[in-house]
Amino acid sequence: MRAAIFRNGDIVVDTVPDPTPGAGQALVKSLCCGICGTDLHVAKFTQQFIDRSRQARGRWTLDPARDVVFGHEFCCEIVEHGPGTEQRLKPGTLVCSMPMTLAGTTVQGVGYSNDIASGFAQYMPLAERLLLEVPNGLPADKAALTEPIAVGWHAVQNARLTSDDVPLVIGCGPVGLSVIAGLRIRDVHPIIAADFSPGRRALAQRMGADVVIDPAETSPYQRWEDMATPPGYDGSRYAQLFGSGPKQRPAVIFECVGVPGVIQQIIDGAPAGARIVVVGVCMETDRFEPFFGILKQVNLQFVLAYTEQEFAQSLRHIAEGKVDVSPLITGHVGLDGVKGAFTDLANPERHAKIMVQPWGVE
Amino acid sequence: MRAAIFRNGDIVVDTVPDPTPGAGQALVKSLCCGICGTDLHVAKFTQQFIDRSRQARGRWTLDPARDVVFGHEFCCEIVEHGPGTEQRLKPGTLVCSMPMTLAGTTVQGVGYSNDIASGFAQYMPLAERLLLEVPNGLPADKAALTEPIAVGWHAVQNARLTSDDVPLVIGCGPVGLSVIAGLRIRDVHPIIAADFSPGRRALAQRMGADVVIDPAETSPYQRWEDMATPPGYDGSRYAQLFGSGPKQRPAVIFECVGVPGVIQQIIDGAPAGARIVVVGVCMETDRFEPFFGILKQVNLQFVLAYTEQEFAQSLRHIAEGKVDVSPLITGHVGLDGVKGAFTDLANPERHAKIMVQPWGVE
Repeated sequence: MRAAIFRNGDIVVDTVPDPTPGAGQALVKSLCCGICGTDLHVAKFTQQFIDRSRQARGRWTLDPARDVVFGHEFCCEIVEHGPGTEQRLKPGTLVCSMPMTLAGTTVQGVGYSNDIASGFAQYMPLAERLLLEVPNGLPADKAALTEPIAVGWHAVQNARLTSDDVPLVIGCGPVGLSVIAGLRIRDVHPIIAADFSPGRRALAQRMGADVVIDPAETSPYQRWEDMATPPGYDGSRYAQLFGSGPKQRPAVIFECVGVPGVIQQIIDGAPAGARIVVVGVCMETDRFEPFFGILKQVNLQFVLAYTEQEFAQSLRHIAEGKVDVSPLITGHVGLDGVKGAFTDLANPERHAKIMVQPWGVE
Repeated sequence: MRAAIFRNGDIVVDTVPDPTPGAGQALVKSLCCGICGTDLHVAKFTQQFIDRSRQARGRWTLDPARDVVFGHEFCCEIVEHGPGTEQRLKPGTLVCSMPMTLAGTTVQGVGYSNDIASGFAQYMPLAERLLLEVPNGLPADKAALTEPIAVGWHAVQNARLTSDDVPLVIGCGPVGLSVIAGLRIRDVHPIIAADFSPGRRALAQRMGADVVIDPAETSPYQRWEDMATPPGYDGSRYAQLFGSGPKQRPAVIFECVGVPGVIQQIIDGAPAGARIVVVGVCMETDRFEPFFGILKQVNLQFVLAYTEQEFAQSLRHIAEGKVDVSPLITGHVGLDGVKGAFTDLANPERHAKIMVQPWGVE
């Protein structure tokens, strides 16, 4: 089969052996697979990713001297079932799956493995028990957004939201946009979102942000305060300690940037008592000021990925039209276009998600 | 009146003007006042404290060229009432108060002020509305522990504890011991506590820890795992994702050390999903690895001080014998002994709390 392969620091298209479905697995055709920011990061900072993964007790093992086929945001079509399968879904069925497969009771990651070709290859061996049928005739490129949409939904599910909260989303790349989609489903308003890029701010609005801010012009935290503070609010220490007047609404701030320094910037800007949900993945060592976290009694919730249930809910949310993912899809490429897409994605004005179609762009 | 004064980087005993109670204030005699770790910190790293406080929008303003009288963990006796007071408590009544006073609706901190002499002086002008009568004939030195006991109670109240949680206390100085006392009241067991000092481990046991650990010999995190893991528990990724077997009990880890590096150490040692409550006050810039926080989806709750209600509850807990503070009191000094006590407190084997009695040791 053909695949876009990460080889010696470059992306090349070549043939690799077809996978054979093992016990409990189904062979699927990868119809469409999004390029994730983490793919770009691993391609650029491969050794850092390997070192970090080793420190994290080998959660992802990667040998940079061997081929890797990336791709973990996919929608597929069932081709055939391996041995020991229930075959509850027929060949030809469109499916999504969390990016992992099972060999017996061994969980194998799909997306950053030397051994399992992932979504940028034409075929994959997925675990039958993880396959979710794509409902409502949803096209493959939209269904492939289930994975990134599940990331935002998980973040929102772990934010302990109440309807009184005023959320603020810092960074409107694919992660921030996904969080905005989740907040819209949870119906917590106003949703305030900030990004330096006009293109991303426009996307944030289309995904459901009520207020979008250019941090170069307006402080997101000041704008948050303007929107979360009721008339007659008294912010003095006396009123805070002993007053019975109106309260400021609680702050829930989503960190969707993932570069060093942003967490402390948020702590500096946040109001006292803010809950900060860290969704952006910063792989570098970071610095922060515990004293300022203490003075404001902030809460930092780090989140990762999603549960099986949240993943399935996300596919349903897209299929039922609760999330319109079409604004996110800004390009389609075949395998030959993957290398160029990795370059193009550096420009936030041009792209959010580029979808790879290993069988060719329709 | 006499006071132990922080003057030019040294502690000296001298006379300062008697305070006059303003509107809504009562003049009180400071009978007993504990020395806090923060007092030692401010005496040693004065400029850092001033810089930090300035960065924190002037919450504590301190001019190092002027006298300061420390002391914010006090029990007092009412001497007389100022103008505009309700006088609901008679002169002679033993009282505690949060370490602040009120001038109209201006809140003034007591403990680190150039203008208001605090607990290491013989008299203080406290706000009548904050005075809590000491019940049950509780002696002044025990009542003076209300403030540090409230710190631990607040941390425990903000840990979102359930009876299934297994708490781990890292550091058994006064802050950690106070957290242990709070956990004991909440009846969440086993309470596991770790400190390098044998003296502090002995105190931890007396305050209610069920298991005490010397981190030089045993990993607190390994010991936590041994105690929180039920028989038949399967920690494999497969079981974590898809298993229905017994679960590990949730981890709540209290950071009670307050020096750089400890938060990351706890993230490294913690199980996935741990809630970390940061009670220790680290005033220096710290480094951490967001990626590891993300992989484990940890929660960091920074806490400070206590509410008015938690402070009042803490006094009742001591008076009703729910917390026995006697193990904490390891020494009494008069004003002349304050300087030496600041030195002696560096030795964790000798001391937990040294109580200052501005009218002389009985």
